[in-house]
Amino acid sequence: MSRFPADSVGLVTPQYQTFAEPLRLACGRMLAGYDLVYETYGELNARRSNAVLICHALSGHHHAAGFHSEDERKPGWWDACIGPGKAIDTNRFFVVALNNLGGCHGSTGPCSTNPETGKSYGASFPILTVEDWVNSQACLADVLGIDTWAAVVGGSLGGMQALQWTISYPHRVRHCIAIATAPKLSAQNIAFNEVARQAIITDPDFHNGDYAAFGVIPKRGLMLARMVGHITYLSDDSMGEKFGRELRTDRLNYDFTSVEFQVESYLRYQGQEFSARFDANTYLLMTKALDYFDPAEVNGGNLAQTLEPVQARFLVVSFTTDWRFSPARSRELVNGLLAARKEVSYVEIEAPQGHDAFLLPIPRYVAALSRYMNQIEVDR
Amino acid sequence: MSRFPADSVGLVTPQYQTFAEPLRLACGRMLAGYDLVYETYGELNARRSNAVLICHALSGHHHAAGFHSEDERKPGWWDACIGPGKAIDTNRFFVVALNNLGGCHGSTGPCSTNPETGKSYGASFPILTVEDWVNSQACLADVLGIDTWAAVVGGSLGGMQALQWTISYPHRVRHCIAIATAPKLSAQNIAFNEVARQAIITDPDFHNGDYAAFGVIPKRGLMLARMVGHITYLSDDSMGEKFGRELRTDRLNYDFTSVEFQVESYLRYQGQEFSARFDANTYLLMTKALDYFDPAEVNGGNLAQTLEPVQARFLVVSFTTDWRFSPARSRELVNGLLAARKEVSYVEIEAPQGHDAFLLPIPRYVAALSRYMNQIEVDR
Repeated sequence: MSRFPADSVGLVTPQYQTFAEPLRLACGRMLAGYDLVYETYGELNARRSNAVLICHALSGHHHAAGFHSEDERKPGWWDACIGPGKAIDTNRFFVVALNNLGGCHGSTGPCSTNPETGKSYGASFPILTVEDWVNSQACLADVLGIDTWAAVVGGSLGGMQALQWTISYPHRVRHCIAIATAPKLSAQNIAFNEVARQAIITDPDFHNGDYAAFGVIPKRGLMLARMVGHITYLSDDSMGEKFGRELRTDRLNYDFTSVEFQVESYLRYQGQEFSARFDANTYLLMTKALDYFDPAEVNGGNLAQTLEPVQARFLVVSFTTDWRFSPARSRELVNGLLAARKEVSYVEIEAPQGHDAFLLPIPRYVAALSRYMNQIEVDR
Repeated sequence: MSRFPADSVGLVTPQYQTFAEPLRLACGRMLAGYDLVYETYGELNARRSNAVLICHALSGHHHAAGFHSEDERKPGWWDACIGPGKAIDTNRFFVVALNNLGGCHGSTGPCSTNPETGKSYGASFPILTVEDWVNSQACLADVLGIDTWAAVVGGSLGGMQALQWTISYPHRVRHCIAIATAPKLSAQNIAFNEVARQAIITDPDFHNGDYAAFGVIPKRGLMLARMVGHITYLSDDSMGEKFGRELRTDRLNYDFTSVEFQVESYLRYQGQEFSARFDANTYLLMTKALDYFDPAEVNGGNLAQTLEPVQARFLVVSFTTDWRFSPARSRELVNGLLAARKEVSYVEIEAPQGHDAFLLPIPRYVAALSRYMNQIEVDR
């Protein structure tokens, strides 16, 4: 008998798809060929009308639900919402989750071998944009025989991809669910990304991105980048509730090396753990994709005009204490959609967890997502 | 004829005071002796009743007003508020501004020579707290013949010193002006400080704080620390207004080394400029003093009880878009004072500039400060 819960998709196996067709990128360069790693949950129906694409955020990947082995301790990153009977119900939907191009979890990225040189791409890997990702995801959809997604769903950077899908391929998306996201970064958002990048780039072990050739990784830089990022994922309130000013030991040490407060210990751990498992070049690439995202830019900043061709209906979700992409940023998107006379539902969820809320099983949030997904028609 | 404006204190000369008496510190260590550098503006009256102490914030110093030379381009850091006829009117008040112990602008600090070893203190300099600073400032007051300050004034970390004065020396402060400050740091505040410290400490040029012996400075770490700090000094709105998503050049470069957006260029400049002029050990020390400040801790967090012995009247000022020390943090202090039945005036200033507002000549802010200072009685 399986040890997995009844509402889990259970054991899942990543699949690989090689694309021989070159991909023209926004930066002007071409990627000769590439692999994408992805997982699927549920069954594609006969009319191929029940496919849902899950787009991941900065440090995410293709393992969104279920378990890779009987021993795996934690399920995929969005297991709370994907599974039989869950908000994204795998009894109804065929769910596809991939690792984005440029990632470090199996899809072609800076750690992959460049066939032209026989060495890892490293710093020579091209910069990617949200548009590029959507184009590569469209190639994957073609291979899977999915002409139109029932829904494209994502939070944060994933929400930007979901939005871009409706602009790049208006006829291939019926519903867009954009969670805790923004139609473009603010100067403050870019500033935090820039600190993260400078932390990585100025790490002596970065070697201009070719650290692999030197047999090192820029751990310090990645750690700092993650620490900064992590602060922006949590709300002031949630950090206060989680840690307050609790001391690590029962008295102050009054030195620079000891960890005095629990929050310091937590942040260092998060940073160190992340630096051991994530690739620095991929991190740079992801933050750049965030910075560059600004679909309205070609229309002089007119978001409504940019959204004119959109065919999809939208669910937009924000969280009250999210200060990375605050509710005001979601409302920008909602207002743009309304000005373009599109159908949009908007839910602002009262949640103390900050930006991280989009990954958590907050009842009102899951209920809103569930209700929206349930009303999506899926002809057998 | 002087080139200085009529409302400037004009040419000023820093003064040095050596203290031979050892200072017992909160960390349990003793500082055998030390120097403090300070400036004064205006004249101490016969009754010595018109002295105002200005306490500086994290990266501040003793040069608060006027000019060090005819050629100096910029006046002291709070020249907007200190001078003849200004909010802190040097026609009425004798103003004292010092560089805190542990600083890097002339007072004894990590860069100073340890008389016991003949080498610079570096990492061996003791950790200081806000209480220690106040004790050292009290020694300076003794030397200057100032028994009671008409007012102790400070913003941010300076506001914490002003508050601590009223607790440590209740009978030596008549008025406390605490601006853009908090009775203690939040977990998020500590987290940002910890990122800054880790950036410095993990810089290979830090050498456990003894970088001077190696003839280097941890520039990268200091730069990152300042970049993070700088983001928290500005509001999202003010960054947006200042930079928006403006590009540095007229097109995107799509690489990791170019500066794409103006805000990146601004932050890098701020970080680099700071790293060339500020000492890393002092930066660590200042952030630790911020973290440790929590005067109510000895009373189990009861701020009102802590404020019971206070004799001073308070003016508390906050700024609407300050998210480093938000108005809610100032109201904590105000509520504590009210609960302890102290006299307090509170002004919340509508200002888009974030935490930085406390350094800027915002008319309503300057008017409030001016009005409060003007009602302070000064017997000749």
